[in-house]
Amino acid sequence: MKKLGVFGAGAWGTALATAGVRAGLDTVIWAREEEVVSSINQSHENTLFLKDVPLDPALKATGDYAVLCDTDFILLVTPAQHMRAGVEALKPHLKKETPLVICSKGIEVSTGKLLSEVLAETVPDNPVLVLSGPTFAAEVAKGLPCALTLAGSDPVLTQEIAAAIGQPTFRPYQSADIIGAQIGGAIKNVLAIATGIVVGLKLGENAKAALITRGLAEIMRFGELFGAERESLMGLAGLGDLILTCSSTQSRNMSLGKEIGEGKTMEDIMATRNSVAEGAHTVDIVYSIAKDKGIDMPITSAVYQILKEGRDVFETTDVLLARPYKTEL
Amino acid sequence: MKKLGVFGAGAWGTALATAGVRAGLDTVIWAREEEVVSSINQSHENTLFLKDVPLDPALKATGDYAVLCDTDFILLVTPAQHMRAGVEALKPHLKKETPLVICSKGIEVSTGKLLSEVLAETVPDNPVLVLSGPTFAAEVAKGLPCALTLAGSDPVLTQEIAAAIGQPTFRPYQSADIIGAQIGGAIKNVLAIATGIVVGLKLGENAKAALITRGLAEIMRFGELFGAERESLMGLAGLGDLILTCSSTQSRNMSLGKEIGEGKTMEDIMATRNSVAEGAHTVDIVYSIAKDKGIDMPITSAVYQILKEGRDVFETTDVLLARPYKTEL
Repeated sequence: MKKLGVFGAGAWGTALATAGVRAGLDTVIWAREEEVVSSINQSHENTLFLKDVPLDPALKATGDYAVLCDTDFILLVTPAQHMRAGVEALKPHLKKETPLVICSKGIEVSTGKLLSEVLAETVPDNPVLVLSGPTFAAEVAKGLPCALTLAGSDPVLTQEIAAAIGQPTFRPYQSADIIGAQIGGAIKNVLAIATGIVVGLKLGENAKAALITRGLAEIMRFGELFGAERESLMGLAGLGDLILTCSSTQSRNMSLGKEIGEGKTMEDIMATRNSVAEGAHTVDIVYSIAKDKGIDMPITSAVYQILKEGRDVFETTDVLLARPYKTEL
Repeated sequence: MKKLGVFGAGAWGTALATAGVRAGLDTVIWAREEEVVSSINQSHENTLFLKDVPLDPALKATGDYAVLCDTDFILLVTPAQHMRAGVEALKPHLKKETPLVICSKGIEVSTGKLLSEVLAETVPDNPVLVLSGPTFAAEVAKGLPCALTLAGSDPVLTQEIAAAIGQPTFRPYQSADIIGAQIGGAIKNVLAIATGIVVGLKLGENAKAALITRGLAEIMRFGELFGAERESLMGLAGLGDLILTCSSTQSRNMSLGKEIGEGKTMEDIMATRNSVAEGAHTVDIVYSIAKDKGIDMPITSAVYQILKEGRDVFETTDVLLARPYKTEL
């Protein structure tokens, strides 16, 4: 494990590449945009997606799939909704034994599948792992410490990859629960919208803490139905990521919720944005899966109804403050 | 359940009394300080402990135990370390059937006992309940919404008290787990000091989210040994309270930790404070219980070693970022 490929040069892909370089790996990052490739190779900065963070000149960028695939393992950091197409494009250049590490978060909206399921269909022979946890890209790129979950079904390979990319400031902790490592990251953006609504409604810190607690309960119920382990959901890739996402006022999902809480309509908000926040997509599929499978997810339902069915935000205060777990009483 | 007594007129006792008045209860609050009694009765404000929050003139204050005890149920809000002496003083005036609701948080440091255990020794005949959750007093006093856990072994009585004090903006959810409802509140201040240290060291949001996640793991391990239910620990009185306490930069425990993280010594800090934060007391007993019973609590241990044994704060980064849950690997 000497050569690392990073597929996707958004903020998170770029940050992961800096972690690879810092761990002493010969690291190449693939970018879709010619501009990003040249900016990384010539100015040692990703001016488009991670501005003002100087990158190690040892990091090489490429637009060539063959160069990306000439590595010992590959981190997949293309957006969730483009993962299938991205990996299809990569496939002709990919060796069957190359481990692929899913670093994107989300559910494929068109199919309702987790990204590990998408890969099982697209590249069934490659070993698949998942890396997820509470990580703002800019902090990782600057070398601030973080801890993540690295999940893989083969403990020897998981250990090998953890050792290759791990550093005191970038700590991948091993797990065997590939499903559990994906659930939190897939749902958290919906819960961040709900948190933003509570903030926009000026309901206070007490209500916000109650809501995040209830958010974990929804992640647990959703995850357990998919076969995730409870400890994974309460760990870095579940609760950890939820806490980070719901505490940041800069997050696009939080700010979308906040504007809704302040009384703006989706139309008003979209008029001032280039694109909608990820949670506004994810909510459709999470809501639909929960409904199909009978999973009790009142916060997700409230967000769905507010965003998609025009339900009055003031009606939802009740929902947002209901108990997190049902008891016997 | 028409008449409510509140024992203790600090910020939280005063806030709880406002909730009682708002629920239509004939509410009397007992204060130790003559000044507080007259300030509440004459100016309808608790100038000493909850300044600038106007109180309903219907709220009466008293310094008389007999007046406090002439009620249908009593909320106990005296500081944890004074609970035993306070209830001893109350006892001669107390009817045996009057339900007592523990609203203070903490462990009795001199004995290592939970407050429900202290009451079982002091007033063994009275029914005991626990009310706990993520609640900043000022928000509750202002009528902002919150959700809490109300735990009691008798479901009928618990329901009766929940109905008496509950309001749409003050929601006590029922539980039968008296132990579980006390654990989070007892430990959270130690974890808030640790969070403050991470903030003071400028380790970033990623590290902070990882630390809070690990904090829940310590609460779970500690609580399970005491017989608490997992759902209680993951609920409002556990995780909810932890999230609130660790997110507030105004908390005395967070700010103590922050100053330590910035390189100040306990001596420097104490020179500028009248009293030490609660977590600095609690850490002794939690550390000692964990050591005695073999509970793995690395964050608590790190806080203990930094505060009490002068361990270098920079050495602890490792501890603060270790995995939250052990896996099979």
